Amino acid sequence: MTATKRVRLSPEARRAQLIELGVELLATRRLDELSVELIAQSAGISRGLLFHYFSSKQEFHTEVARAAAAEMIRRTEPDTSRPPVEALRGALSAFIDYVEENPDNYKSLVRGAASADLEMRAIFDNTRATMAQRVIDVIAQLGFELSDRADLAVHGWVAYVEECVIRWIDSRRFDREQLLEMLTKSLPAVALSASDDEVGTLVSILTDQKPIEQ
Amino acid sequence: MTATKRVRLSPEARRAQLIELGVELLATRRLDELSVELIAQSAGISRGLLFHYFSSKQEFHTEVARAAAAEMIRRTEPDTSRPPVEALRGALSAFIDYVEENPDNYKSLVRGAASADLEMRAIFDNTRATMAQRVIDVIAQLGFELSDRADLAVHGWVAYVEECVIRWIDSRRFDREQLLEMLTKSLPAVALSASDDEVGTLVSILTDQKPIEQ
Repeated sequence: MTATKRVRLSPEARRAQLIELGVELLATRRLDELSVELIAQSAGISRGLLFHYFSSKQEFHTEVARAAAAEMIRRTEPDTSRPPVEALRGALSAFIDYVEENPDNYKSLVRGAASADLEMRAIFDNTRATMAQRVIDVIAQLGFELSDRADLAVHGWVAYVEECVIRWIDSRRFDREQLLEMLTKSLPAVALSASDDEVGTLVSILTDQKPIEQ
Repeated sequence: MTATKRVRLSPEARRAQLIELGVELLATRRLDELSVELIAQSAGISRGLLFHYFSSKQEFHTEVARAAAAEMIRRTEPDTSRPPVEALRGALSAFIDYVEENPDNYKSLVRGAASADLEMRAIFDNTRATMAQRVIDVIAQLGFELSDRADLAVHGWVAYVEECVIRWIDSRRFDREQLLEMLTKSLPAVALSASDDEVGTLVSILTDQKPIEQ
């Protein structure tokens, strides 16, 4: 293993570089497997120097988790210039891509990191809340009134999507396109099952609003 | 605090008693807050004697989590002698009751305990799998063919229900009956959004299959 070249960087830049390196290493291991030794070795610095930038291993792990969550949020940003169902479908497709590229990282963040550590849990909760809020915006564009129940349904739906994608990755018993289709349809399904709206609206979404080819 | 009366019990009975005590204490604290000192004090035994029955604090925690999961599974057993939608509704109602009575315990098991510990994760995964399998049985009774996609949807739905109930407990922005109604409806909604079935089937379930008063 070759140590990366030592370059003089500001403390902030060095800190950001170490966090980025941590996120990259997460692609092939869980957060709790990210040892101080591995990071120091990969960065070509001493173990002691790492603690010049981070007060503890826990602080380093928290910042890596925060950066990984921010990257996922950025990559799955819906394109709101497109029709709502397409924007939703695009965001879900980006989400599947992200989980496929970072399965260990993602499982670690979603399942493992939701631990007793309050700061780590806050990162996880904020990530889910951001994903839910985006969806709520898309639904508002579709013209649905969001009752408290429908709002809860959207938050539950984020957990549904996470669970489906994580399980699908492990088994792949049908193709990616079918997964994307079922996830896209499941949102109006749960939102409307939580409302008093006429189910006819649901039917039209499930049958007619196929993604438009552009 | 009065120590409970010391009674001569077989090692197996004493072990079971300590696990049961651990489950009871979980009602008001998370698993990671369940210290050896607290258990020993509550059971009226010495810290050292606890380790006569369990090889480590981790083993004790694992057994407590297993027992808590088993109790939840037992309490939410659907009554299969009833019509499927009613059986589903009854099981969901028992699940809401369980989470309401043991909110910290439940959050700890669902969110916290899904940690890096493999045995703990297996308990969590088995619990979800058991809940999903029950639902798959109920759906089969409803006469739906379960494709691989619908099977995945049911597993995702368990995560959906967990998330909805946990969030509802914290905010209670609408009444319990409305929560129960939306959760009951969400199952056919996601199962059918994951299938190629005629959506008309979904409509009939969402509109007509209200629970029968007996």
